[in-house]
Parts: sequence; C-alpha cells; structure tokens
Amino acid sequence: MFDPLGFIEHKRDGGHHTDTEIRAFVNAVMTEEMRGYQLSAWLMAVCFQGLDDGEMAALTDALGRSGDVIEYPREMKITDKHSTGGVGDKTTLILVPLVASLGVKISKLSGPGLGFTGGTVDKLESIPGMKMHLTAQEFYKQIDKIGCAISGHSLQLAPAEGKFYTMRDVTGTVPSLPLITTSILSKKLAGGANGYVFDVKCGGGALMENYEQASALAEKLVEISKKLGKNAVSVITDMEQPLGEWVGNAAEVLEAVEVLSGCGPDDVRELCCALGAEMLIMGKAAKSREEAHAMCKNALNCGLALKKFAELVGEQGGDASVCYEPLKVLKFAEKVYEIKSDREGILARLSARPIGEGLRALGGGRLKQGDEIDHGVSVQICAKIGSRVNRGDVIMRVIYNKETQLEAALPYLLQSWETADKADKRRLILGFVQ
Amino acid sequence: MFDPLGFIEHKRDGGHHTDTEIRAFVNAVMTEEMRGYQLSAWLMAVCFQGLDDGEMAALTDALGRSGDVIEYPREMKITDKHSTGGVGDKTTLILVPLVASLGVKISKLSGPGLGFTGGTVDKLESIPGMKMHLTAQEFYKQIDKIGCAISGHSLQLAPAEGKFYTMRDVTGTVPSLPLITTSILSKKLAGGANGYVFDVKCGGGALMENYEQASALAEKLVEISKKLGKNAVSVITDMEQPLGEWVGNAAEVLEAVEVLSGCGPDDVRELCCALGAEMLIMGKAAKSREEAHAMCKNALNCGLALKKFAELVGEQGGDASVCYEPLKVLKFAEKVYEIKSDREGILARLSARPIGEGLRALGGGRLKQGDEIDHGVSVQICAKIGSRVNRGDVIMRVIYNKETQLEAALPYLLQSWETADKADKRRLILGFVQ
Repeated sequence: MFDPLGFIEHKRDGGHHTDTEIRAFVNAVMTEEMRGYQLSAWLMAVCFQGLDDGEMAALTDALGRSGDVIEYPREMKITDKHSTGGVGDKTTLILVPLVASLGVKISKLSGPGLGFTGGTVDKLESIPGMKMHLTAQEFYKQIDKIGCAISGHSLQLAPAEGKFYTMRDVTGTVPSLPLITTSILSKKLAGGANGYVFDVKCGGGALMENYEQASALAEKLVEISKKLGKNAVSVITDMEQPLGEWVGNAAEVLEAVEVLSGCGPDDVRELCCALGAEMLIMGKAAKSREEAHAMCKNALNCGLALKKFAELVGEQGGDASVCYEPLKVLKFAEKVYEIKSDREGILARLSARPIGEGLRALGGGRLKQGDEIDHGVSVQICAKIGSRVNRGDVIMRVIYNKETQLEAALPYLLQSWETADKADKRRLILGFVQ
Repeated sequence: MFDPLGFIEHKRDGGHHTDTEIRAFVNAVMTEEMRGYQLSAWLMAVCFQGLDDGEMAALTDALGRSGDVIEYPREMKITDKHSTGGVGDKTTLILVPLVASLGVKISKLSGPGLGFTGGTVDKLESIPGMKMHLTAQEFYKQIDKIGCAISGHSLQLAPAEGKFYTMRDVTGTVPSLPLITTSILSKKLAGGANGYVFDVKCGGGALMENYEQASALAEKLVEISKKLGKNAVSVITDMEQPLGEWVGNAAEVLEAVEVLSGCGPDDVRELCCALGAEMLIMGKAAKSREEAHAMCKNALNCGLALKKFAELVGEQGGDASVCYEPLKVLKFAEKVYEIKSDREGILARLSARPIGEGLRALGGGRLKQGDEIDHGVSVQICAKIGSRVNRGDVIMRVIYNKETQLEAALPYLLQSWETADKADKRRLILGFVQ
C-alpha cells in the first residue's frame, strides 16, 4: 500500500526515495490514490529539497512508461533532437532532412505550439496537403524508406508527465531543475529513440534565463539520459533574440527552404550545422565535430538536404514544389505594417518573448490547446542585436490579416526592442555538454 | 482579482505577503478561487520559507474572522485556557471552576477528542444529564450567573482554519511553527476571550517533541496574541508520560473531583495551580505568582473550587452529586486487566502516546469525528517515570468492557513502558513565556 503522506513527509525532510517508492508514487498519481493536493505539496517540497540523480532517473522512467511507449524495430537506430523551446526556431524542419540526407535515421514526434513558442506541426501544416498525423505503421515505414519522418502524435505518451505538468503550471512548481529534467526526459523516453541531442535555449525568450541555469539543465539532461542507457549531448544556445529572420508558420517554412537551399540567415545555418554535427557523430556517420560540421554545410550548399526535404514532404502528402517555388505554394497574409526606428543607435535589445507573444496576438499561435491558428501571419525581423539602426530604418515588418489583431500585437512588438550607444553581436552557440 | 499562482510563487521565493494579500488569499480559499492543490503548494512553501510575525498576525486575523466570532458583552472580561493536547489531561475540568471560584470569569468552548488525545466534552458527558451544547444565550447567562461555563460548540468558528487544518493533515504540512501558531490562535480569536493562557505540551505525547520546539511555539503564541491586542502567557509543561493517574473519560472526571477535593495526584494539582495562577494574574485577582498559587492551592484544599464545579454541573443539567459521591454517579467498565512488571528496576519510560492510542482501542476515543465512544473504559497508571518497580508490581490497570478491545489495546500499552537501572522523576513545569 502506497502511503502518500509518508512519501511527502520523507521528501519534505530531505529524504531519498527508492526506485520502488517512485514507481508506486507515479502509479498512485495515475490512480488518484495520491490526490492532486498531495502531488502539489510533494512538487513544492522538491522545489526546496531537490531530487538526486537516482531519483530523477527513476522518476523519468516511471513517468515515461506511464502510457504508450514507441518501440522501433531493433535494427532501426534512431536519433532524436529536442529543443527546450524558442521563438523563430525552425531548426527541426531543416535538421530532419539534413541529417537523414547524410545517412542517419531521424524521427521526430512533435506536439502543437503553445504560448509564445511555435510548434513544428503547425509550421509544416502551412504546406498544402501535408499530413501531420501518421499512424505508427506509416511512420515506421517512411523512416525505413527515406530515413526520416515528422509527425504529430495522438498517442498517450507519458500521460503521468502530463498530469505533473498541468499541476506544476498552476502551483508555482515549474522552475525546479529536477522537475524540468524529468519532464523533458520522460517524454523523450516514451518516444523510443536511442540517442538525444538537446538544444538547451538560454536567455529571456527561454525557460532558462541565464547561462548557469541553462548549463545546469544541459548537464542534468545528459547525465540522466546516460543513467537510463541513452546516448545524449546538449548544445546550449542563445535565445535572447528570435532565431533567424522570420517568426510565423508559413514564413518559417519559407526560411527553412532558404536554408536548405544553401542560403538563409547565418544564425539558423550555424545552429543547424552545430546540432546536425552532433547527430551525425551520434549516428556514427562522422568521427569528429569538424568533419560532421563540414558534411552538414556541404549538404545544405549542394542541395542534398533540400532534396530529402522534398521527399519527406512528398511522402507525407504535401506539395513538394514548396521546395522550389515556396512563394507560390505557401499562403501569406497580405497586409504589411512596418515598425520603424525613430532614433539612431545600435540595436541593443530584441526580446524573443514579446515577439512570440506578438505573433500569437496576430493569430499565429494559440493560448490553449485546440485554438485555431492563422498560418499566414508573421513577423519579419529586419535588424538583430548589434546592428546599426538609423532613423526611419525598418526594425520589424508585421504581416497580418486583421486590424484588430495588429492592434493586439503592437504593444508586444513595440516593447520588444531598444537601442543604445553600443552593443555587441550575440554569440549563438554558447556551449556543449556531453 | 486575487492571483493564486503569483501568491504561491512569492512565498516560494521568500517574499513577504501584505495584510491585504493575506485577507484576499483566505477569502480565495473560502470561495475555492484558490484550489486545494494551490493551497497545499503554498502550505509546503511556508514549511520552508516561514511567515514573519506580521504575516502570522494577518493570517490569524483572516482565519479567525472567516466565520462566526463570539462577542461577549463589553463588561465581561473573559480569560481562556488552551492546551496543545495531551494524554490524561483533565486540567480544564478543574481549572474552570477553580478560577471562577476565585472571581475570574472563564469560558471554555471545547471540541470533541480526536486521535490519541481526549476531549473535555467527552469527559463531561460521563456525568448523567450533563448538557454540553449550550446556546450562545445560555452560555453568556451562565457565565454571568456563576462565572463559568464549558460547552461544545456548533458554531462555525474559523471555518477557513478548518480547511487549512484538514489540508495540512494530508499533505505533510502539519509541523510548521507559523502554521501551528496561526491554527491555534485563529480559533482562540474566534472564541472572543480577552486573554489566553496556553499550556504548551512538550514530549513524546505532544505535537512539540522537544523543549526547543515547544518554547518556540510558546513564544510565538504570546508574541502574535499581543500583536493582535490580546493578553497572553504560555506555560511549557511535560507530556512525556500521561498526566495524573487516570486516562479515560469517566475516570478523568473522577480524578478531577479528587483534585477539586484537595486530594488527587501531585502532578495534576501542580499543573492546575500553575495555570490557575496565571489566569488569576491575568484576571487581576492576584498580583504575584506566589500569591496566586497560594490562592489556588487553598481553593482546592478548602472545597471552594469543588463547590463551584457542583454549581457548574448543576447549571448544565448534570447530576451534581458527582462531586460528593462520584463512584455512585459515574459508570465504569467492570472488567480489569493488570499489566505487571516481569522485572525489577526503575520505570524509565512511560509514553503518553501509545497509552492514548490504547485508550482509543478500548473504545474510549475516536479515530474520526462522529465515532461513538465508551465513557467507562480507562487505563489506570500505577507507576510514573522514576518509580521503583519490583517483579509482579502492577504498572497499569486496564478497565475494559470487551475482550476484543482489550486485545486491540494491549499491543499499544505493553510497548508504552520500559525499566532501566536508573531514571530521574520528570519535572512537570518546564518554563513560562509572557
């Protein structure tokens, strides 16, 4: 018999939970033998007393196995990439075909976007015909055939984690490193891959606002993954300003196609090559970071990755001509509003978070699950931190449909930037943990 | 609009709540705008971050005023006594008539006993005819007429505190000094007295197991009472072993009558004189502790206090001859089981808690509210810590009705005592805080 009260008191007093206790605890949460108010008390106790590595591994395992667990055929070695969430982050769209084009199998299960960060499923649904909810059978078959697949999921992956997450959100127990770590890893575990590359975002537009927090998370993700017998690497990257030039669903597909065509913004290219290189090494397609990096750069420049993306879109029922004539295939909103500078200086702040919230206000994101979104709206970022700005220069371009939505978005967008006398360009890749 | 999440996060991060915030918080708990799982998360955060004196006063006030508040007529100055709960603690039965017999008005609202501690209402209900649920009108009238009254209550005193208490009990948030302090004081505040004498029990049979914890609570009770404009004194007393000779409802009435007759066990007399003296000083009936103590001793020895108890019982419809022929009036169980020593030595441990649990198992206490109890069962304590014990000496006498209940009680009782080569008698009165 599980004793919820004793379990809470043990953690409150700084005690250690055994694997057996943690399994019984997660089970009791699922059966509601442990009530919501008891779970929240335990979560708050963890905010103060923490969990050690053994407890984190056991909790990850119990949460990860609380529902469906994807099991790939034995011979299929799958690498998964996870980002802790950012604004303008279209790397999945590029990375998946890039890595697959170099011979490493990659599968990606994505949820829809929520809050101020966008979701991969929403972005790809900008492509006409694109089927984003594959059956398990279709999913495996496609990975086997072309080496990659991206799908939303209707599976019950880590439902206990869902309960924890919902509870944390309303009880002030989100910012706890062990709870964040187990939350991320339990969903990865249910996803069934053999190795993970984590993109741990750091800055005002991310959950981890400073480098210390981000690197602590990056380390825990790798440590606990390894404890669970999984290969893992973390890359710590800047999320103070949005990634790339475009924030918005169809617009980010356009930008992904540009990068896959060997063009596109430097920061997106750099991040994709950095993450792609780690995945190639993990998939044993390259021996050193330098070699892997060069392979990625080449695959982008020579069109190999773009060709794989066209295959992926085609396999999933989408219009593959998006790869060659994106402006014909993708639908964009038609009205444009320009935010111009009324002063001279160096762009010193360009905050990702209010820009993400601005896009949501435009109709391009959702506040709660099930909300409809407008794929065609977007924000174009015309200057990045460190750029010189003259009076009258365009800082952002808002591509929108409804005046009321523009009005709702502008307060966010207008407060998202500031100039100063000087500001350095930001470094994008801040560190590696492996 | 009250923001439950922000309120929890503020305390989690070590912030201070203003009086206004605390009032809004208690209100939100009552309206369920703040949900149970949010209350429990906040309570756990308080276990780690605490509450300062201002927060405790504001919380006491808000909880205390969340339902009915008793208001005595202006000219009626009432002193209240509160014990943090012990085993064999019949002091209320003695103190109320004792203090009233010396001219200080005293009212006592008591709840029923729960768990391993008995309740005053249950004890007095052993007296045939005794009416323990007076209306407010009857209660005030009796205090005005004879200077004292003891009643159970059907009022909604501090219902918010009830919600907090119920939640703390199942979420591991009981042992937090600020929460214990505000819990006790908010109910006192709703009770309407002008001054409080707290009997803070200390030891294995009490909530506060050691002197440091007990004196911290004693100090907080006095400090916060004063902040709320109330007179207050705490007496810290030993609750390692049961108080007096008898544990059980009718049996404790018997012992109270003995003490009120100038006899009875020394420890009960000593505690009643100590607490009574503080009440006399608070009620301005005595100037010094020595004078007040002598007054109490005299009122017990000369029968003045007993006469007042007879008045009280009579006024409340009970058979007042209990004061003169208690063995005729009170009903006791008839079977007796003697627990004898199988060794020689000094009694070194006699734990109050398992004895209280033993009484409950005999049918003399309740596990949950509403359970029926048997007033006639009891445990007689025949040796106290520090007593010499020879082989065959009776340690305890169990007065019981059903063999099955005896069987259920014996495991508790048999493990409640130990002998050693030496052990000092315990001091009863450990300290005063004023």
